[in-house]
Amino acid sequence: MNPQGLLAQLGPCMGAPAWWLGLSGGLDSMVLLELLSQARQLSAIPPLHAIHVHHGLHPEADAWAAHCQRACDARGVPLTVVRVQVGQGASIEEAARDARYAAFAEVLAPGAELLLAHHRDDQLETVMFRLMRGTGVRGLSGMPARRALGAGWLSRPLLGWRRSELEAWARQRGLDWIEDPANADERFARTALRHRVLPGLRHEWPQLDRSLLRLAEHAEEASALLDELALDDLQLVVDVSADPWLACWSRLLLAPLLSLSAARQRNLLRSWLRQQAVRMPDQRQLLQIQQQLAAGADAQPQLTLDGCALYRSSDRLWLVPAQWAPARSEQALLPLRGELALTGNGALSCRPQAGGLRDPGSAGWQVRYRQGGEQIKLAGRPTQSVKQLLQEAHIPVWLRPSVPLLYSGGELVSVAGRWNAERALVEGAGNGFTVSWKPVSD
Amino acid sequence: MNPQGLLAQLGPCMGAPAWWLGLSGGLDSMVLLELLSQARQLSAIPPLHAIHVHHGLHPEADAWAAHCQRACDARGVPLTVVRVQVGQGASIEEAARDARYAAFAEVLAPGAELLLAHHRDDQLETVMFRLMRGTGVRGLSGMPARRALGAGWLSRPLLGWRRSELEAWARQRGLDWIEDPANADERFARTALRHRVLPGLRHEWPQLDRSLLRLAEHAEEASALLDELALDDLQLVVDVSADPWLACWSRLLLAPLLSLSAARQRNLLRSWLRQQAVRMPDQRQLLQIQQQLAAGADAQPQLTLDGCALYRSSDRLWLVPAQWAPARSEQALLPLRGELALTGNGALSCRPQAGGLRDPGSAGWQVRYRQGGEQIKLAGRPTQSVKQLLQEAHIPVWLRPSVPLLYSGGELVSVAGRWNAERALVEGAGNGFTVSWKPVSD
Repeated sequence: MNPQGLLAQLGPCMGAPAWWLGLSGGLDSMVLLELLSQARQLSAIPPLHAIHVHHGLHPEADAWAAHCQRACDARGVPLTVVRVQVGQGASIEEAARDARYAAFAEVLAPGAELLLAHHRDDQLETVMFRLMRGTGVRGLSGMPARRALGAGWLSRPLLGWRRSELEAWARQRGLDWIEDPANADERFARTALRHRVLPGLRHEWPQLDRSLLRLAEHAEEASALLDELALDDLQLVVDVSADPWLACWSRLLLAPLLSLSAARQRNLLRSWLRQQAVRMPDQRQLLQIQQQLAAGADAQPQLTLDGCALYRSSDRLWLVPAQWAPARSEQALLPLRGELALTGNGALSCRPQAGGLRDPGSAGWQVRYRQGGEQIKLAGRPTQSVKQLLQEAHIPVWLRPSVPLLYSGGELVSVAGRWNAERALVEGAGNGFTVSWKPVSD
Repeated sequence: MNPQGLLAQLGPCMGAPAWWLGLSGGLDSMVLLELLSQARQLSAIPPLHAIHVHHGLHPEADAWAAHCQRACDARGVPLTVVRVQVGQGASIEEAARDARYAAFAEVLAPGAELLLAHHRDDQLETVMFRLMRGTGVRGLSGMPARRALGAGWLSRPLLGWRRSELEAWARQRGLDWIEDPANADERFARTALRHRVLPGLRHEWPQLDRSLLRLAEHAEEASALLDELALDDLQLVVDVSADPWLACWSRLLLAPLLSLSAARQRNLLRSWLRQQAVRMPDQRQLLQIQQQLAAGADAQPQLTLDGCALYRSSDRLWLVPAQWAPARSEQALLPLRGELALTGNGALSCRPQAGGLRDPGSAGWQVRYRQGGEQIKLAGRPTQSVKQLLQEAHIPVWLRPSVPLLYSGGELVSVAGRWNAERALVEGAGNGFTVSWKPVSD
């Protein structure tokens, strides 16, 4: 371990506008601080800062911050101390971690790099811990050497070194560090793993560390390949039709989706939902989605997932915010010039134009919603049901109750501006109005 | 657990010509014997046999076989006892397992089903054991519920049940079973896992069993998807050109191979080598193959793998038996009617035909190999080097030293029958001979 080796690890980060070292004051991050401060004697690196997160959980927390300040001052590295409130959660350790990463993300300018001092033993413990608590192939891959964080990146340049190597290096150089008392406290599951479980397993299987770290590499490669497969498959399955009522909804074409093997469908669905920032469904939920896709009852919410609903309709699978679903009932008048914000189903707008709808006069246009049985006569066509128009245009069943209808004097004048009654139109190119509906407000 | 549940598990095996129960006489297989014999009272099943493998490793082994015989007699199930020799290997347990599966494969007629009584705890131990000893994503998937074995299939219908459920069921019905003394003997690593390691881990992580079994399912699905991806990619990369000299070699087209991401190339190479029954290379070997593909030095053996060599030549990656490589030196006379077996490079044959090569008379045709600098004048073309002909026909560099040349009276007459010297041809459609070369004998 040496500054040259560190610089080699950090090659991909050289173009960053700044490097932020996450400094707890413990052995690992103190070693990284010293390595970085030696490295910048050797070679030009981006401006170096340190950030210490003050969790306020321990009576010594102020002393730790002071220790970090002294270490940074001695090396001429500016230090930012961020105080966070750790939420009450299932585990203090997890809550502290969440608060810490949020603080890190906060300081990162676009493209800036956060450097964390996780080492080989940390990686091993992460993998083992996930194995015991439950994980899939993706989780098995452990902590990535580099990933996006906030507007920038997170890098872990010390993953190749053992804790014992860091410690030997630190002792040789007379570095001072804080022993976090949590390390000696078996209340924390990770510490139990380190001091009780792993030593026992290593006694039985001396090659344990290498086995698990290799497996993590295999799992990382497998996950990346499954992502590639999903992206290839998504290309064939994502519907990109340009209908203005539909463009704002993410949806998949069912026919190519269902032509894939069941496992491949699940892989694609996972990837698609991740793209849409929906929390990953578990295997049971995915199997449920698939069952309902195969059964194909239209108009039923398929599944509610993390604030979204999946619907099957018009040969597509739709991802819709869960609050979209209820039928609309409010009534309002549409102004002739301007926009009317609807309650949860976007906005209707109206503007003057040659042709189009005739001025409704004092009756105005009332906004209503479908009750069933509505009919309309379009120019050049016989009277027909609104239901038939919606079906012909492949408007999905879940969207239909939210399509605003315009009435004037009790008569249906227009279906959201898309279909206008012949008798409500101006003659030729006379002065009229164009109505349009955007289902989702920007 | 009941016979109906068992029959449901065995649905896919109902069409088999026979079911063979692997019977050790221990709890698990005795339960499966009793379940099967109850199941056939309820429903028609294929003819039921049992097979007991006598490893001869233990003084009680004869008594175990006798116990199995009594249990089968009592239920009217014919029993085959197979004595095997357990080889000396790294582990007695593994050697015994290999001998046992070989004996099982032996008795299976095409489509017959071997039923093994592995249960949930066995699966868990398998996964944990592989984790500790080292495995990739594929190995993590544990024992499959069904797979091909010999000419038939292997099914494990009890994977859904715990050992404790099997034992309670057996006690309720007063079943007799043998306690395998290995179960109580911590010499065997698996037994250590069962009695020492797993209980300790379960104390720390009560959800351990479910975590690992779920992970095994995820890993199985991931492996199947990676196989699908590899097969899709292979379609684009496998070279199926029909050149009779080349058709017998498995090869990949380099351009589409190298257009894939590095991880996807490795996935494809793994799958291709598995198809060709080459033992799986490890990650280091795959990286080495990729380096050499990218570097692209022709004619160098890329890597020797499990008795094969990988060559890069003529824009392809070739898989060639390692013994193929040496330059040929034997000299022989080609008979005018019939076949000449060559030493490791197939056979040359000659038969009379209208047109073709002229009878060489008493000088005969001598078989030789390239030394360099050979030239030949084909009909309608200027004299040219044999090297140029081979290059133009995309004959890979590693094959060229094995291409037999025919000489008569010290003059080059034919390059393996594919290119014949103009002066050695008969006039018009007169009686001549056709020579052809098959690089690999059937």
